[in-house]
Amino acid sequence: MKRLQWSRLDSVARREALRRPAQVTAEDTRVAVGALLEQVRTGGDDAVRALTARFDGVDLEAVEVTGAEFAAAQEAVSASLRAAIDAAAGRIEAFHLAGMTQPYAVDTAPGVRCERILRPIRRVGLYVPAGSAPLPSTALMLGVPARLAGCPEPVMCTPPRKDGSADPAVLVAAARCGIRRVFKVGGVQAIAAMAFGTASIPACDKLFGPGNAWVTEAKRQVSMAEGGAAIDMPAGPSEVLVIADAGAPAEFVAADLLSQAEHGPDSQVILVSNDEDLLDRVAVAIGEQLAELPRSAIARQALADSPMIRVDSLEDAIAISNEYAPEHLILALRDARAWLPRVQAAGSVFLGDWSPEALGDYCSGTNHVLPTGGAARCTGGLNVSSFQVAITVQEVDRRGLQAIGPCAVELANAEGLGAHARAVSVRLDAA
Amino acid sequence: MKRLQWSRLDSVARREALRRPAQVTAEDTRVAVGALLEQVRTGGDDAVRALTARFDGVDLEAVEVTGAEFAAAQEAVSASLRAAIDAAAGRIEAFHLAGMTQPYAVDTAPGVRCERILRPIRRVGLYVPAGSAPLPSTALMLGVPARLAGCPEPVMCTPPRKDGSADPAVLVAAARCGIRRVFKVGGVQAIAAMAFGTASIPACDKLFGPGNAWVTEAKRQVSMAEGGAAIDMPAGPSEVLVIADAGAPAEFVAADLLSQAEHGPDSQVILVSNDEDLLDRVAVAIGEQLAELPRSAIARQALADSPMIRVDSLEDAIAISNEYAPEHLILALRDARAWLPRVQAAGSVFLGDWSPEALGDYCSGTNHVLPTGGAARCTGGLNVSSFQVAITVQEVDRRGLQAIGPCAVELANAEGLGAHARAVSVRLDAA
Ligand SMILES: [Zn+2]
Ligand SMILES: [Zn+2]
Repeated sequence: MKRLQWSRLDSVARREALRRPAQVTAEDTRVAVGALLEQVRTGGDDAVRALTARFDGVDLEAVEVTGAEFAAAQEAVSASLRAAIDAAAGRIEAFHLAGMTQPYAVDTAPGVRCERILRPIRRVGLYVPAGSAPLPSTALMLGVPARLAGCPEPVMCTPPRKDGSADPAVLVAAARCGIRRVFKVGGVQAIAAMAFGTASIPACDKLFGPGNAWVTEAKRQVSMAEGGAAIDMPAGPSEVLVIADAGAPAEFVAADLLSQAEHGPDSQVILVSNDEDLLDRVAVAIGEQLAELPRSAIARQALADSPMIRVDSLEDAIAISNEYAPEHLILALRDARAWLPRVQAAGSVFLGDWSPEALGDYCSGTNHVLPTGGAARCTGGLNVSSFQVAITVQEVDRRGLQAIGPCAVELANAEGLGAHARAVSVRLDAA
Repeated sequence: MKRLQWSRLDSVARREALRRPAQVTAEDTRVAVGALLEQVRTGGDDAVRALTARFDGVDLEAVEVTGAEFAAAQEAVSASLRAAIDAAAGRIEAFHLAGMTQPYAVDTAPGVRCERILRPIRRVGLYVPAGSAPLPSTALMLGVPARLAGCPEPVMCTPPRKDGSADPAVLVAAARCGIRRVFKVGGVQAIAAMAFGTASIPACDKLFGPGNAWVTEAKRQVSMAEGGAAIDMPAGPSEVLVIADAGAPAEFVAADLLSQAEHGPDSQVILVSNDEDLLDRVAVAIGEQLAELPRSAIARQALADSPMIRVDSLEDAIAISNEYAPEHLILALRDARAWLPRVQAAGSVFLGDWSPEALGDYCSGTNHVLPTGGAARCTGGLNVSSFQVAITVQEVDRRGLQAIGPCAVELANAEGLGAHARAVSVRLDAA
């Protein structure tokens, strides 16, 4: 990691230190993704099958997971992993359930009832990537809130394995969330199939889930296409910003930085401390731990350009974090709770030495689909309302119309909208 | 309006009947907007001033509204309009306040506290167009939730009038919402200035508000630009779908259709009824009312291609509405409340004969910035949480780590993420 002394940097250097690599999709990727989307849109299941053969190296007669394959998955997964999936799902459920948006009604005037009602999004499409390994945790993070929202027809796509089966742990997680329709389709072809529909895969109103640059580009394109689908959020490289003080155990801090770094060579990892010695100790601990990691090559790449920033005060550290707006923020501080009120923008915050980010990734109960790329300045992570539509309602009776109608007429006339004024006054005359 | 008999249409004709005109931005508009954005990004205030002279025909020394201009606005606006603005603001406040997302905390296991906290978006930019007339109601619909969210630095842009002043009614509405920084800048230059910042106009994290096709395209482009700004939602042409039964007063239904139609020639207006006679009577009433409307030419254009759909049953009518997902849905039915549970997708619903859409536009209390173009299948209208960031938090102690740590290790190992497992196990060893 690169050492920086914040007080010695001018404003340009500071901006540079916190600048994320630009997420520009190469023109050829954009064109290639567009062509694949079009291929599936016009070619349907045949195109999906052909692309699955090409990209996944599997020739699948039918892409939908059968009841028998679901049953076999339960057998194939160890009892301890099944228990972990179940326990994680339970805590994710508990946390998401407690935060659900509620319907409500207010009489804003006598005879004027205004309400908010909630409906599940009818057809949601959940994408669970495989990449270097299957991700049952992602199936839970998408499936649990979809279920709590009451989505009637959730659909999941996940890439097939070389033998043509779906990953059993992903199927166990899907089943835990009540998802019965899982398709063994990955990549751009999965996004296209869920956005436009094929004979076997239903078209969805909104698509959820992470993926590589191609999947992200495919989601972006279908969200702008006529007759396409809405999407959850653009997924950039994963990020952590750790603020550690002199008392933070270097071994823990190093382990947290490495767990972020192993996600991919483009992972963003930032350490900020008001203690020079802590930075030294973390650097040493990273070196020691790197040696033992299975994905050390990836982590090493991610850390090469990552900054360790020495600040004069924790106030400065928080200011840096608020400016950067990290996906994950770890406050490895002696009194972490006391600093929380100053946090203005972050996806998910981890307080103290015993709250590693890995717990949030898997099983504390919060969602791990979080805003990246600075989006945490304006938006939060996935939650039940991401799977719902809020509809406002007004029910006005004669008395209510008499109470607020003249106000509407006044404003409509001020805005030069005569037909608006008339729609109210014609009723006032009759009321 | 065009008459259609739903039962006689095949599925292709049905889809065609509900198809919205494609919202494709002409390539030359896209390029022109991009050039204007770049001009402001690099040219700052000078560029804003030059473009204001070019598009608004006004040469402004300073674009910010002064305290004196705010004070003069109070004088310039009639007492009755000031009272209407104040009353509308009060009801919008009451409704939005009651629906605010709340912070909460749940212990998902002993020693594992998970929370959601809320923060205002730091810098929000509100755009209030003028177009054919100023829109104080839009200032309220943006300003009230921004204030309730606690946004510390709201900024508003609105086009200058020919004499270089801002519309006084818009200023009265802004002041009512506690907005002190208003800039007399409109169109693409306003969006650019708020997205990128100039010497006098602060850069904003998120932009809100409607506008013409150029403004909408500008918002789209800055939302995708590096260092740009997030946006509320893409704004398409306004829409209403009215479901009326035999008992609906034709005069009211006609007035509601016309109030939608006067918004613009591209307004989407659909009437659905199970009663042939009602459709006849509405057609007659439209003819009568059109003659008296100031904006009859616009309304006539909007209505030319709009469908009146005869259905066999109200169930069919609701199904059509759920498929179309209108911005506004009016249930002009004898028992409107009883049909509400079947509504699955709409921006805002108006129940019964005494709830014209114009009330929701101005002063019932609900927000009039609503999803168009079918987006109501997946998203609701503007509300306080549109101006907030929800942040999740986890605080785990030693006991909590012992409770859920092994679950995280199991899942991390299943996903092949050794550093994740290690970040937990290194703590389990120490706990
Ligand atoms: Zn992680
Ligand atoms: Zn209207």
